[in-house]
Amino acid sequence: MKRRDFITTAVLGAGTLAFSGCHRAEKQTAENTVNINKGKKVTLKLATSWPAHFPIMGTGVDTFAKRCFELSGGTLEIKVYPKNILVPALQVFDATSAAQIDAFHSGVYYWKGKNPAFSIFGGMPLGLLSEEMITWFKFGGGYELWREMYGKFNLYPLIGGTTGPQMGGWFKKEINSLSDLKGLKMRIPGLGGEVMKKLGVNPVLLPAGEIYTALERGTIDATEWVGPALDSMMGFDKAAHYYYTGWHEPGSILEITFNKARWEKLSPEHQAIITAASEEMTGTMLQEFRYKNAKALQELPDYVQIKNFPPEFFTAAKKALREVLAEQSRESADFKRVLESYQSFYALNEPWSDISTKHLLEIRN
Amino acid sequence: MKRRDFITTAVLGAGTLAFSGCHRAEKQTAENTVNINKGKKVTLKLATSWPAHFPIMGTGVDTFAKRCFELSGGTLEIKVYPKNILVPALQVFDATSAAQIDAFHSGVYYWKGKNPAFSIFGGMPLGLLSEEMITWFKFGGGYELWREMYGKFNLYPLIGGTTGPQMGGWFKKEINSLSDLKGLKMRIPGLGGEVMKKLGVNPVLLPAGEIYTALERGTIDATEWVGPALDSMMGFDKAAHYYYTGWHEPGSILEITFNKARWEKLSPEHQAIITAASEEMTGTMLQEFRYKNAKALQELPDYVQIKNFPPEFFTAAKKALREVLAEQSRESADFKRVLESYQSFYALNEPWSDISTKHLLEIRN
Repeated sequence: MKRRDFITTAVLGAGTLAFSGCHRAEKQTAENTVNINKGKKVTLKLATSWPAHFPIMGTGVDTFAKRCFELSGGTLEIKVYPKNILVPALQVFDATSAAQIDAFHSGVYYWKGKNPAFSIFGGMPLGLLSEEMITWFKFGGGYELWREMYGKFNLYPLIGGTTGPQMGGWFKKEINSLSDLKGLKMRIPGLGGEVMKKLGVNPVLLPAGEIYTALERGTIDATEWVGPALDSMMGFDKAAHYYYTGWHEPGSILEITFNKARWEKLSPEHQAIITAASEEMTGTMLQEFRYKNAKALQELPDYVQIKNFPPEFFTAAKKALREVLAEQSRESADFKRVLESYQSFYALNEPWSDISTKHLLEIRN
Repeated sequence: MKRRDFITTAVLGAGTLAFSGCHRAEKQTAENTVNINKGKKVTLKLATSWPAHFPIMGTGVDTFAKRCFELSGGTLEIKVYPKNILVPALQVFDATSAAQIDAFHSGVYYWKGKNPAFSIFGGMPLGLLSEEMITWFKFGGGYELWREMYGKFNLYPLIGGTTGPQMGGWFKKEINSLSDLKGLKMRIPGLGGEVMKKLGVNPVLLPAGEIYTALERGTIDATEWVGPALDSMMGFDKAAHYYYTGWHEPGSILEITFNKARWEKLSPEHQAIITAASEEMTGTMLQEFRYKNAKALQELPDYVQIKNFPPEFFTAAKKALREVLAEQSRESADFKRVLESYQSFYALNEPWSDISTKHLLEIRN
């Protein structure tokens, strides 16, 4: 899931000043609590990029907060604010960086404007699945790089869930060749969008609330979103009948990210509680996406046709992706560094993945 | 301290009668502490089926115990006893059931003698991968059945890690046809062993410490174990050069299981801590197995040949598995019930798995 609607600039403008005042008060409290932490209640404000109780992602962070409260015997309260209540959906990074709020829950792919390298932490087209991404973070050096680079923004990131494999999107017309993609207007952000651009697609960005109408009216020809569970809620199947299997988001990573100074002032116990709860959230979200996607797939109307892109698409998409990665590596030393770490893990993982996961999925049917 | 430390090896040896008395005393202590739990220290004894600090599984449970201590601010201490210290490796189920110890960490596949249905909770040949198994437990009804059936043994189970995909095993000779399997002596337990038996293999059980010598001397012709990381430590590559890809353990589940009465007397906070720490352990173990298997695979000697079983093997193995499952369903109503739940989730999951995970692994290379 990608870009979301912004709150009005008026509110955003008004917020900044108010938050600054808020920040100073919060900071003082944090400093005080560090010495009297044991058994004392700590309250953290966490803003998300999702509507209140948004399925799977939003309810996931609600459960995470509840879990932190339980695990701490009530000494750690994380107040979850849906998008646009405290901070506009896509201002949560800046607001946490500036200590206007303590933490946020969002998707890593939103912040490539801050540093192009961040898009890799969010996931790679035609790349690692969720479980493999997390292995890279924990055992392959991904976390070290992420924390180093977020550290420059005074942020401390944790993996805060993952969507599992996403679908390729909804198309009004069937795609039988690369030429069918030329000139197509498609809502698709991120590295996937840049690959599509090289294939002649015109990638457009739209707030969530406008996608269905644009697709239904033919203002756009196609859109990607997440997978069957969340796509069904958006009603896309009513506006486009060809549902393409995924390639550009095989394992998107969400994040629970804290203001670094605030994080460092938490007690080791509260840090451990947040970390363990985020791990639990990540596993459960992956499983919940699997279960609900499987169910929603079964319930799609009969007129929906599940399609794979033609083989020539993948050949062209891989070539285009290599070009995009080379371009971004030239432009950003950080991107190059993170890409090298990712690719090194990919090379290590692939032979094992081939003879284990892939082999087992192929033989079992 | 919540539980007295009075079970000595001598007492353990003294038998059931002594334990019954012991159990009643323990119960009373637990009931008293339930009201004064908050902030009071609880100590639990957990026995494992692994040697001390055994890689990945043993270190996993060490980390789990450490995490419970951290999360509880030191109020929950889980003392981990490697196999044969408090209880023999395969007596941990009975000892926990009888409240001689509080909990155990082991593999679910060990307990099919208690109830044939338990083998399904441990994993299914040619079946679900770890992440899919866990989804079945949490969202498809697996946990309810497991807890109901373990409840009859006064046990409360939690998933306590998973090995991820295992390999098919080490063979001294290449397997080019089904006839190459006839009369082969192979160390292979569980449902996989029963399938192999129907294909003419003579499955044998051997203690871990005797497998290498048996393979090296030709007393057995083949053995399965886990995967590259743990197999390398056993030196199997020195005794057999054909390493077959996996089919019989696609997602084996380990367990952290508690004496149920003891579990129910824990505070909600300590229950939440154990649950969250077990979830963290499960994710991390899967990722650690992936990373270390990938590394160990790269480091295998050149003379090791990685092989797939021939296609006719899978046709025959699927037929044999259907027979084994039908036989066990006739013999055990519990087996039939758990199998139906498993198969119902499998049927739901498979179409989504096909167009997501499997598709993504196939297109990315």
